Amino acid sequence: MVQNRQWVLASHPDGHVKEEDFSVQTVELPALEDGQFRVKVEYFAFEPAMRSWITGRETYIAGVQVGDVMRSMAVGVIEESRNAEVPVGANVVGMFGWQEYVVGSSLREFAGRVIPDGAPPTWTLGVLGITGLTAYFGMFDIGEVKAGEQVLVSGAAGATGSVASQLAKHVVGAANVVGVAGGEQKCSWLTEIAKLDASIDYKALDERGLYKRVAELFPNGIDVFFDNVGGPILEAAIANLNEGGRIVLCGAISQYNENIPSTGPRNYSNLIIKRGKMQGFIVMDYAKDFAKASIELGGWVKGGKIAHEQDIQGGFENTPKTFLRLFSGANRGKQLLKL
Amino acid sequence: MVQNRQWVLASHPDGHVKEEDFSVQTVELPALEDGQFRVKVEYFAFEPAMRSWITGRETYIAGVQVGDVMRSMAVGVIEESRNAEVPVGANVVGMFGWQEYVVGSSLREFAGRVIPDGAPPTWTLGVLGITGLTAYFGMFDIGEVKAGEQVLVSGAAGATGSVASQLAKHVVGAANVVGVAGGEQKCSWLTEIAKLDASIDYKALDERGLYKRVAELFPNGIDVFFDNVGGPILEAAIANLNEGGRIVLCGAISQYNENIPSTGPRNYSNLIIKRGKMQGFIVMDYAKDFAKASIELGGWVKGGKIAHEQDIQGGFENTPKTFLRLFSGANRGKQLLKL
Repeated sequence: MVQNRQWVLASHPDGHVKEEDFSVQTVELPALEDGQFRVKVEYFAFEPAMRSWITGRETYIAGVQVGDVMRSMAVGVIEESRNAEVPVGANVVGMFGWQEYVVGSSLREFAGRVIPDGAPPTWTLGVLGITGLTAYFGMFDIGEVKAGEQVLVSGAAGATGSVASQLAKHVVGAANVVGVAGGEQKCSWLTEIAKLDASIDYKALDERGLYKRVAELFPNGIDVFFDNVGGPILEAAIANLNEGGRIVLCGAISQYNENIPSTGPRNYSNLIIKRGKMQGFIVMDYAKDFAKASIELGGWVKGGKIAHEQDIQGGFENTPKTFLRLFSGANRGKQLLKL
Repeated sequence: MVQNRQWVLASHPDGHVKEEDFSVQTVELPALEDGQFRVKVEYFAFEPAMRSWITGRETYIAGVQVGDVMRSMAVGVIEESRNAEVPVGANVVGMFGWQEYVVGSSLREFAGRVIPDGAPPTWTLGVLGITGLTAYFGMFDIGEVKAGEQVLVSGAAGATGSVASQLAKHVVGAANVVGVAGGEQKCSWLTEIAKLDASIDYKALDERGLYKRVAELFPNGIDVFFDNVGGPILEAAIANLNEGGRIVLCGAISQYNENIPSTGPRNYSNLIIKRGKMQGFIVMDYAKDFAKASIELGGWVKGGKIAHEQDIQGGFENTPKTFLRLFSGANRGKQLLKL
């Protein structure tokens, strides 16, 4: 009998998510039946959106309930199979959850698929997966970025922001792309590796300093703001928005751990004067175009237009701790955990 | 010599606009030269946007400076003319400002035109003018309202909101159109004259009550929110927004008299989950389509699909006082003043 350790939701977080909001349970996996296969999970992927799945409130997909295995994208390998379509040794990606093993009879149960040979399997969790696709559809379909434009990206050293900013700069040819991140190391990565025009270290600035720096770096205003963060940087972007400016609401990580945020963007009415728009989106709405976009992204990564980083922590027991790295800003690039 | 009384800006308002922010001066008009005409102004029109012109800060058009005649749309009649294209007796509309007379050599100087016979001249200041056109382009081009949808309008008894809500209900065929206004009289107008599905009297409710009432009246959520007001009603709409919902930012009259608004929409990040958008616009961007839209509006008004009201105060000396009626919510329908 195979023992399967699982992280389950122990409580809906009250404010900041804590390690104690999750607990481990061990279950025995039954022997495979005809048509079934067993995935040995190798890597978990972490996304800010996972915070919204455990609130206990309704959201864009069904919430994770107390006692459920925590939902998560993961990659693994087929360890045993009685299903000819899913051969032993195949690398697979899917919504396998925070557990060591998964038994199924179709990868579709997990919105999953076999990973073709070529790129490393973990790339399908990041630059070629949901986070890269989120950057792609957010920057192109919602941001409608054009060559020569002025672009600001928050959370720019994160998995989505780093792709979004480089798409604007190196694929579309925006004139000025500035990334906001926390700490010198991330900011150097943005200018030296991702080769953006400038970076802003929000941890080194107070709110007033942040506003001032945004204004200095955008003497010609902002055409597209790709926002993963919310809060003061959103207000600074609205204040400097050009006529017809687009604000892509991708995330609001600064707000997720607050039960009732204390304020929204106080200057939102500048959107009226500037004929601006602020628009949210869910990458799943573009699912029919994922395959094509992922191939395009793969070409740009291989062609050197898009640099990306993976932040790989280790150890099943460190799973909740690794999730928390997203909220302290400790991660650099795509946050993964190797089991 | 003709004496011309003018209201000029005496000071940029600090917070709430006051009557003392304006003062009267009298100037003598010179005799007409060849090619010139003189307009005797008969009605001033008042719009919330005028508040943004006198802040002393940059906005979408040049600000009115201290000592300038206050900018305003107005209608008048040609009293004397040495210009064959502008005959004596013609009714004209244009940006004539808060003054008794205007001398010019082309109506284009005032973004003006001769009013064709047919509808009463003052209608060009309201339902067939900027406010009606704002409703038209906001509801159709930004709100993209469709038959069968759920629609909320704030400031619904005002000049723009009343047209916007009736366009949605009686022209497009929205399933449920609810208007928000202050006071029983305005609310009865919305349901009995404008024939909306329901009204909300925000003055009779506290913030919690307002949220509750919006939720009750929209068990199927909100597809389009046409907002003239901002504040709690904006948050209530965001909270009940349907997937793909559109928030038309037409105005934010609850915010205009605050130097630094204390909060923005705290729940704006619901726009992410709901793939919603919040978009501002300036009606002047649609100027090339004004003539066609105004004719369409005229047809709907004459055909009984759109009811409208004019709130006509009297007396040149009451001009600033009449402007203030917009902010206390005293006006019902289009605020005008007859000189």
